[in-house]
Amino acid sequence: MATVRCLTIGMQRAAPALAAQHGLAAKWSSLRPLCSALPSLRAAAAAGSQSARSSQQQQEQQPRPPLPRLQRRQAFRTQAAPASAAATTADNGASAASATQDRKAGSARIGEAGGKGLVDVNPPRGTRDFFPEDKRLQNWLFGEFAEVSRLFGFEQVDFPVLESEELYVRKAGEEITDQLYNFEDKGGRRVALRPELTPSLARLALQRGKGLALPAKWFSIGQCWRYERATRGRRREHYQWNMDIIGVAGVEAEAELLAAIVTFFCRLGLTSADVGLKVSSRKVLQAVLARFGVADEAFGPVCVVVDKMEKIPRDKVVEELQKLGVAADAIEGILQALALRSVEQLEALLGPECAAVADLRTLYDLAAAYGYADWLVFDASVVRGLAYYTGVVFEGFDRAGQLRAICGGGRYDRLLGTFGGEDQPCAGFGFGDAVIVELLKDKKLLPEIKHQVDDLVMPQDESLRAQATAVAQRLRSAGRRVDLVLEPKRLKWAFKQAERCNAARLVLVAPDEWSRGMVRVKDLAKREEADVPVEELA
Amino acid sequence: MATVRCLTIGMQRAAPALAAQHGLAAKWSSLRPLCSALPSLRAAAAAGSQSARSSQQQQEQQPRPPLPRLQRRQAFRTQAAPASAAATTADNGASAASATQDRKAGSARIGEAGGKGLVDVNPPRGTRDFFPEDKRLQNWLFGEFAEVSRLFGFEQVDFPVLESEELYVRKAGEEITDQLYNFEDKGGRRVALRPELTPSLARLALQRGKGLALPAKWFSIGQCWRYERATRGRRREHYQWNMDIIGVAGVEAEAELLAAIVTFFCRLGLTSADVGLKVSSRKVLQAVLARFGVADEAFGPVCVVVDKMEKIPRDKVVEELQKLGVAADAIEGILQALALRSVEQLEALLGPECAAVADLRTLYDLAAAYGYADWLVFDASVVRGLAYYTGVVFEGFDRAGQLRAICGGGRYDRLLGTFGGEDQPCAGFGFGDAVIVELLKDKKLLPEIKHQVDDLVMPQDESLRAQATAVAQRLRSAGRRVDLVLEPKRLKWAFKQAERCNAARLVLVAPDEWSRGMVRVKDLAKREEADVPVEELA
Repeated sequence: MATVRCLTIGMQRAAPALAAQHGLAAKWSSLRPLCSALPSLRAAAAAGSQSARSSQQQQEQQPRPPLPRLQRRQAFRTQAAPASAAATTADNGASAASATQDRKAGSARIGEAGGKGLVDVNPPRGTRDFFPEDKRLQNWLFGEFAEVSRLFGFEQVDFPVLESEELYVRKAGEEITDQLYNFEDKGGRRVALRPELTPSLARLALQRGKGLALPAKWFSIGQCWRYERATRGRRREHYQWNMDIIGVAGVEAEAELLAAIVTFFCRLGLTSADVGLKVSSRKVLQAVLARFGVADEAFGPVCVVVDKMEKIPRDKVVEELQKLGVAADAIEGILQALALRSVEQLEALLGPECAAVADLRTLYDLAAAYGYADWLVFDASVVRGLAYYTGVVFEGFDRAGQLRAICGGGRYDRLLGTFGGEDQPCAGFGFGDAVIVELLKDKKLLPEIKHQVDDLVMPQDESLRAQATAVAQRLRSAGRRVDLVLEPKRLKWAFKQAERCNAARLVLVAPDEWSRGMVRVKDLAKREEADVPVEELA
Repeated sequence: MATVRCLTIGMQRAAPALAAQHGLAAKWSSLRPLCSALPSLRAAAAAGSQSARSSQQQQEQQPRPPLPRLQRRQAFRTQAAPASAAATTADNGASAASATQDRKAGSARIGEAGGKGLVDVNPPRGTRDFFPEDKRLQNWLFGEFAEVSRLFGFEQVDFPVLESEELYVRKAGEEITDQLYNFEDKGGRRVALRPELTPSLARLALQRGKGLALPAKWFSIGQCWRYERATRGRRREHYQWNMDIIGVAGVEAEAELLAAIVTFFCRLGLTSADVGLKVSSRKVLQAVLARFGVADEAFGPVCVVVDKMEKIPRDKVVEELQKLGVAADAIEGILQALALRSVEQLEALLGPECAAVADLRTLYDLAAAYGYADWLVFDASVVRGLAYYTGVVFEGFDRAGQLRAICGGGRYDRLLGTFGGEDQPCAGFGFGDAVIVELLKDKKLLPEIKHQVDDLVMPQDESLRAQATAVAQRLRSAGRRVDLVLEPKRLKWAFKQAERCNAARLVLVAPDEWSRGMVRVKDLAKREEADVPVEELA
C-alpha cells in the first residue's frame, strides 16, 4: 500500500480489461498539470441570462424609492450601502407589505403549512445569501478587484472579521462608531464585527513593526458590518475592497490609488462620462482652522461634523461646530472654504504656499501623466466621514447623481500613532460591493455569467454506471468540468439538464457504443453527434 | 466631457508631444481584453522561500506538543482544528512564556516604550491575521478547493457568517452546540457566528423550495467559528470547504463526493499511502438500535455519544448511553458493532439485507469505478459528531496517525425536515483549512508561493516621474503587473526592491535614453540589459 502512488483512474476493478483497452490508465496525479492549464476565465467570458433574470426579479419585488441626490452615508468608509441587488437579502425575501410587520411572523417563515414552523429560511435581517447566480457575479467582481490590485503590484492581506472593539472606538462622533456591531464575548472581552478594514491593516503594520519593508502596498477584500435599525435598502453587512500604501509621504501614493480605481472602472466599461472622482484635502480645513486659532484636537471632530453637511441642515452643522468650541468667525471661514470648486479659488484664499494647494497641484499633474485628469473634480466640500484622514481625500461618484458615493479614501498619516505605534505615512481607499453593482446595472454593464460545465456525462442505463463514472473521471483528469448524472434519468431530462448547466457536450455511455469501445458525444452548440472512441475522449 | 470615452494613457498633458511620439495613446479601455489573457496561475507556479521562512519561524516560536493518535475534535464538522500554521495567530504572537500571563499585559502590546500603550496589535485570541505570504498560501488552497468543485460541476454559494442561533441549537449534546459562538444582538435577537456551513446551505435550499432544480450540487468556502476557552493550538475560527449534493438518494452522491476529495488530495501530491478515507454508515447503529428496541429519537444523541469513544473513557461512554435510556444489552451490541473492521464482518452480524451493508457494497463498487477503492477503509467506529447524519459517514485521515481528521461528511436526509421543510436526500462534506496544511508541511508538499510582479518601474530622477508613470501605466494596460517606485530612490534600492517583489524586469526611465525615445530594461533573471523603444514596451 505504502508504495502505491496516485491510483489509475477507471475501472481497474470493475472492468479491468475494458479499462486497459480504452487507455483509461491515466494517473490521477496527472490532473494537476492538466487542470492548471484550464483557462480560468472561461466561465467569466460566457454570456447568459440567469443572473440578470435573478437581479431583475429582485428589482421587481422591491421597488427602490428614488434617492436624494448625493445622499451620503458615513457608516462605511466607502459610504457605499451594502445593498447589492446581486444577492438575495433578508429584505428581498419579505413582501413589500411586510415591511412594517415583524419578519418573524412574515410569509418567509417556512413550515407553517406543515405546522412545524421551526426555522426562518431568510438570512438574518440586513444580511445576504448568495445563491449560485449571485456568487458568480460576486466572484467576477472580486476577481476584478484582485486583478487590478495585482496589476499595481499590491499584495493581498486579511484579518479577522471579529476584532477588538478598541480598534474602532474613536471619540470623534463618527457614524461608524455609533453604528458599531459590538458585543461582549463569553470571556468578557469587548469585540466588534469590523466596520471597516483600515484599522486592522494598521494593526498588521504595527505588528510587523521594523520588519515591514516599506513601502508596503496591500489590498484586501473583506466583509464589513454595522448595526443600526435596518430599513429598506440599508444592509448590516457589505464587502469592501481596500488598497493601501504604507510608507509613502508624497501624493504619488494617492495618485497611484486613484489610478487603480480608474483602471477598475475602465475594465468594467465605465468612462469619465459615467463616473468622476471628487478630490480635496483636509489640509484645507486645517489651514482654515489654524488661521482662526482653533485647537488642533478639534480637527478630527470638525471634519466629521462638516462631512454631514449634505445630510443635515446647515443650522445643525453650525450648532455642532459651536458645541466643539469653534468660534463664529471660524465657522464662517470653514463654510466659505468648503464652497470652493477650483484649485485656483483655493489658492486665492489660502495662498500658493498652503500645503493643500501644493498637494492638489501635484496630484493633478500626476493624474495627467497617468491619463485620468478628466476623471477628477476638485470639490472642497469633500472631507469624508472618518476621523483619521489627514491629507488628500477623495470619493468616486456617478455623474448622473443618482447614487451614493461609489468609493472613498485618502491619506491617514496619524492612525498608527493613535494606536500607540510610530506614525507612518499611509493612504488608502475603500470600495464597496453594492453601489458599483447598482451603477453597472443602470448602465447595462453587468456581465451575465452562466453556470457552465464542459460535459454532462450519463449512462443510458444503470448497468453502465461504472463505465460512465470512469468516463467522467477520465474527462476531469483532462481538466474538463463534468457534471455526472447520479441517478437513473431519461435522455429528455439529460438534455434539459445540459441546458441548465450550459454543457458544451452531452456524453452518453450506451450499451452498443460501449461494446465497440465508443461513447456517443453530442455537441450541443453545433447540434451534431458522433461516436467517439473512449481513448480519444478529452 | 460627456462624450469622452476612456481616456488615453500617458502624458497627454504633461508631455503631449512625447506621448504621441512614443505611441502612448493606447486606450485605458484596452486593458480589459489584454488583462483577461493573463495566466492566472503565474504566481502559483512560481517557487520561492518567503512563505516557507515565515512558517518555519512560527514553528520555531511555538513548539507543538505531539498530539495523541487520532485525537478527535467534534467542534467543527471536519474535526479539523483551525490551527493552520499558514497564518499569524494570536497565540503565535505571544512568547512561550506568556502563555500563562494575561495576554493584555504581554510583550505583544505595542506602544509601551512610548508610554501610550493603546492597542493590542495581535488579532483577538484564537483568530488569525493573514500577512501577504499567508494570504498567498490561502489563495492557493482555496483555489484548489474551488477548482476541484468546478471539475465536478458544482456551483458556489455563500451565506452570512452571522446566522440565527436557532439554526444550530440541537439537543443532541454535540460539542458544536456546546461551543457555539453566540450572543444577543442589539435588537434582542439570538445570533451566532456560524460553527459550520451545512445548516445555512439547508436554509438556502428551503428558501428556494420547489424552485430549486434537483439535484443541486453546491460548494462553499467560508469561515466557521466556535467559542471555547482558547488553549495552545486551538483556534476559534477556521475556514471550511463544503461540497453538498441535494436531491440524490443513492450512495452515488457519497461516491461522487469522495471522488472530489481524492481528486483534491491527488492534485496536492498526496497518495493513498499518505491519506485514507474511513467509511461507515449510521445505518449500522440504526440496525443495532432497532434490534434492541431502542427508541428512534435516541438515534442522534446515541451517535453523538458514540463519536466521543476515542476521546473519553469507555466507562464514561457507557454511562452516557445509560443516561439516554439505552439498556445494557443494547450498549453491548453497539460496542460490538463499532469494533467491526470489514464489510464482511458487518454482513455476518447484520445480514446482507441490512441497508448499511448494501450501501457500503455499492459504495465500494463505485469507488473501484472511480479508481479510489484503495483509499477507503471500512471502520464501523466512525459515526461523526454531528447529530444530523443518517447514512454513510466518512472522514479523511493521515495514515501515519499523527493528525486529527482532515475532513468529514456523510448523508443527512432529515436536516431539511428538522427545519420545518420537506425532507430532501442530502450528502456533503466539510474540509478544514488547518489539518491539510499541517499534513502538506509534514510531507513537504506545501508550495512556496512568492510575491511576483512583472516589472519594477522607476524614474532615475524626479524630473522623469511623469514619464515613468506613463510607462508603468502602458505596461499595466498590456496586462503586466507593475510595481511603480513612488519616491525618490537610488538604483541600489531598486535592485533590492526588485528582488523583494521578484520582478522579472527593472524598467528604468533615465534622461539620456528617454531623449532618444528609449527606456533601459534590465532582465533580472538573465542579468542582461538593453535600451528598448518606449513604443515597443510590453
